[in-house]
Amino acid sequence: MAYIKNTWYAAAWSHEITRDMLARTIANEKIVFYRTESGEVAALEDRCPHRFVPLHLGKLKGDIVECAYHGLCFDASGACTLNPHGDGKIPRAARVKAYKVVEKHSIAWLWLGEAERADESLIADFSVLTDPSFQTVSSYLHVRANYQLISDNLLDLSHGQYIHPMFANAEGPPRFEPEKEPADHEVWAKFSRPNQYPNKYFQMLGYPSDQRGDHRNFMRWSSPSLLLLDVGMTGVGRPVEEGLSIPTSHLLTPETDCTTHYFWAMSRDFRQEDVALSEQLLRVGVAVFDDEDKPVIEAQQRMIDNSELMSLNPVLLQTDGPAVRARRVVEARLQAEQAS
Amino acid sequence: MAYIKNTWYAAAWSHEITRDMLARTIANEKIVFYRTESGEVAALEDRCPHRFVPLHLGKLKGDIVECAYHGLCFDASGACTLNPHGDGKIPRAARVKAYKVVEKHSIAWLWLGEAERADESLIADFSVLTDPSFQTVSSYLHVRANYQLISDNLLDLSHGQYIHPMFANAEGPPRFEPEKEPADHEVWAKFSRPNQYPNKYFQMLGYPSDQRGDHRNFMRWSSPSLLLLDVGMTGVGRPVEEGLSIPTSHLLTPETDCTTHYFWAMSRDFRQEDVALSEQLLRVGVAVFDDEDKPVIEAQQRMIDNSELMSLNPVLLQTDGPAVRARRVVEARLQAEQAS
Amino acid sequence: MAYIKNTWYAAAWSHEITRDMLARTIANEKIVFYRTESGEVAALEDRCPHRFVPLHLGKLKGDIVECAYHGLCFDASGACTLNPHGDGKIPRAARVKAYKVVEKHSIAWLWLGEAERADESLIADFSVLTDPSFQTVSSYLHVRANYQLISDNLLDLSHGQYIHPMFANAEGPPRFEPEKEPADHEVWAKFSRPNQYPNKYFQMLGYPSDQRGDHRNFMRWSSPSLLLLDVGMTGVGRPVEEGLSIPTSHLLTPETDCTTHYFWAMSRDFRQEDVALSEQLLRVGVAVFDDEDKPVIEAQQRMIDNSELMSLNPVLLQTDGPAVRARRVVEARLQAEQAS
Repeated sequence: MAYIKNTWYAAAWSHEITRDMLARTIANEKIVFYRTESGEVAALEDRCPHRFVPLHLGKLKGDIVECAYHGLCFDASGACTLNPHGDGKIPRAARVKAYKVVEKHSIAWLWLGEAERADESLIADFSVLTDPSFQTVSSYLHVRANYQLISDNLLDLSHGQYIHPMFANAEGPPRFEPEKEPADHEVWAKFSRPNQYPNKYFQMLGYPSDQRGDHRNFMRWSSPSLLLLDVGMTGVGRPVEEGLSIPTSHLLTPETDCTTHYFWAMSRDFRQEDVALSEQLLRVGVAVFDDEDKPVIEAQQRMIDNSELMSLNPVLLQTDGPAVRARRVVEARLQAEQAS
Repeated sequence: MAYIKNTWYAAAWSHEITRDMLARTIANEKIVFYRTESGEVAALEDRCPHRFVPLHLGKLKGDIVECAYHGLCFDASGACTLNPHGDGKIPRAARVKAYKVVEKHSIAWLWLGEAERADESLIADFSVLTDPSFQTVSSYLHVRANYQLISDNLLDLSHGQYIHPMFANAEGPPRFEPEKEPADHEVWAKFSRPNQYPNKYFQMLGYPSDQRGDHRNFMRWSSPSLLLLDVGMTGVGRPVEEGLSIPTSHLLTPETDCTTHYFWAMSRDFRQEDVALSEQLLRVGVAVFDDEDKPVIEAQQRMIDNSELMSLNPVLLQTDGPAVRARRVVEARLQAEQAS
Repeated sequence: MAYIKNTWYAAAWSHEITRDMLARTIANEKIVFYRTESGEVAALEDRCPHRFVPLHLGKLKGDIVECAYHGLCFDASGACTLNPHGDGKIPRAARVKAYKVVEKHSIAWLWLGEAERADESLIADFSVLTDPSFQTVSSYLHVRANYQLISDNLLDLSHGQYIHPMFANAEGPPRFEPEKEPADHEVWAKFSRPNQYPNKYFQMLGYPSDQRGDHRNFMRWSSPSLLLLDVGMTGVGRPVEEGLSIPTSHLLTPETDCTTHYFWAMSRDFRQEDVALSEQLLRVGVAVFDDEDKPVIEAQQRMIDNSELMSLNPVLLQTDGPAVRARRVVEARLQAEQAS
């Protein structure tokens, strides 16, 4: 399966990258991440070019990785700095690929493609994750399904009515507002429930259960698979700013063709100091994503085996519009990249 | 691997199909079974045509299956009856295959092929299973081997002498009577032990250990893999009716190319009220099929890997005659079906 | 993957072959070993030609193997001696391959190729294993990696500095002496540490920790993958005979393309009666090979997947010379065998 190379992937939460080497496969490329002594993130091909032992099995000495097997040393640029054997000559081919990584919004963003095209300004806006006026809880989930099956899930939140008791509503699935504009790098999937009683989630967050209001679930998808949900509830007809708002980040990174790194976070601009609420939100997120979405998406993956979903001619509903648009954006970028 | 479609497969014991959905793969087709409110058996393709989530993960509401993911609803005919989203239109392609199922002899029989050719009278006779003059114990076994390896086993009962201590006999393997007639939909494999002392099985059933008699093991195979064993013992030269008789049913249904659903039952027309004997027979059956046949057949499957047995040119003995005939019947029907 | 057939493989330690049948796969061939009543080693294709059940599931009766399934009997020559069914005729094709096995140096050596070319004098010299002036401890290790990845490991002992704390030395990796002569059936890989303090291994064996000496690690490789390490330490400039010597045998036998039987032994000509030292050496060997080499080699195998190492263009260092030479010998013999 082909992946867009010249784009930013969420490789890790910043806090995951330390002085202990972290091995992680991204879009089928095996990579070892570590933090240099000066605090930068280094990302190297996780395979010694000598005998192909994973570098993460070795030792980090200063900013240098020493291979576990025969002690070849590589610096953060991927250059071999020491061959401790025989005449000590370093063969020209003795180097590993070094990847460009940028830290922003508490995420380590990885560029798989040509380093000279790695433009930081292309990173989608997830500033909410580090905005001091928000309190954020975050986690990581490993899913045995292709990343696009998960973005399909997130771009059609009507599933909440069926899969997530906490998000279901007595009046049925939400109203869907189809997008009019053609998609470029972004797709919006807007679901709303005007003038309804709060679901269990908003009740938990403090919205009075006997009071109607306007719910919104506006999902922003950025290529290749970075999603930010503007989810909130406010009084009927009242401005958004008055109500509860919990921007929720979903960063999907293909690991292999059939597995995905799923980084998620829930931010809020109310009761920021309430530790119990933070813990509760984390528990809810784990319950919803791990226990409710994941089994269904993995069953879907097993059902389609290794096929590409669209090649199986799925029946399409109106609510699939955003997911289909997003897949088209990815496909177009892939083809453009392969053509050039 | 190809399977005969226009034939009846044993899909389940009738009692297995309830108001809880049962997912079962038959000849590589994933199917969900349930009982409608009126008690009929419904069998649907176990894959929502929208996002390919298995339907059995959803909810049964009346006779309707609601998909777990986005709530599409399907009735027992496979038609989509509700799209709860957007404009609510039901796409023409939104349907799943519905299979013809007939209940007979306590078995739910499944027809994989063209519904209009599903003729109930073609179901092989297993009326002994529900005959009130017989008491029957039954069970289910999952075997990691192709179904034909199991029918080979059952069509050459000379293996009992080696694999099953309970069926072995001091005078060695049984006498084999080759069939003369060409096989059509049925094959007979007749083994007998005239004028011998009873094996442990017949001793357990009450045949005096110091008294000679005539044993018989007459296996009837019906296409594609439904076997009924007429097994019994009577006094030397005495008519069959006088002796013990335990007709034993073996219903083999391919699950995948290398796995099989094995439904078996032992019926008897004596000591019908003897609950302890029923329990003992069940224990013996489990010991014989699960613990003795299954490991050998699964080892055989691993040895031939995914190859078709006959393509490996096995050495053939006289006692393989029935198994070879049965395989030829299947092959001929398959070719006929593929030609038409 | 192709394997040299006309060569001797270490199939088992002699003591492993008893009156209980031993199933072992060698170079992808499934073989059953047993000892005849007269004490000879028999080795038969582990697959009954009738229904392909592994023969080792059957019974050993005298020198005869009776198949578990239908009781066909085979003698140590592979001939079928009994068909207990029907007319009892033995089909001409009813035989299994019998392999030539020779016991020498406490090893059962297997010849996969043409029996008439099986020349005992071609067995590499491992007489140290049974030499009464040596005490030997031995063991067996199953490795999930191609056998050549392990011989690569053993032919480049510079890895000891990095993987094995017990073999590491304060002055760094050992000196490598490249071979000058072209390789035929043997390759030598000579590493030494002249005039250094002993590593932990030699300290454990009694070499004074404050006394310099000359270490040597001279590995002899014999085709296809039989290695004998002359490892020892003696006073600076003193003759080898004065010092400690622990010839270490490494017999690598391909099981499948990605798994290996690894038979190893440590022999010594000092403190032969010291049982505690024997136990300590065994523990060290297990720690070094099982816990230190094996994980790295298996990680290497997973990294290269099923590829042949050299096809991936590894960077070569001077110290890879012997491993490359050994691979060339194997490749040349393979090609010669396939040409003839």
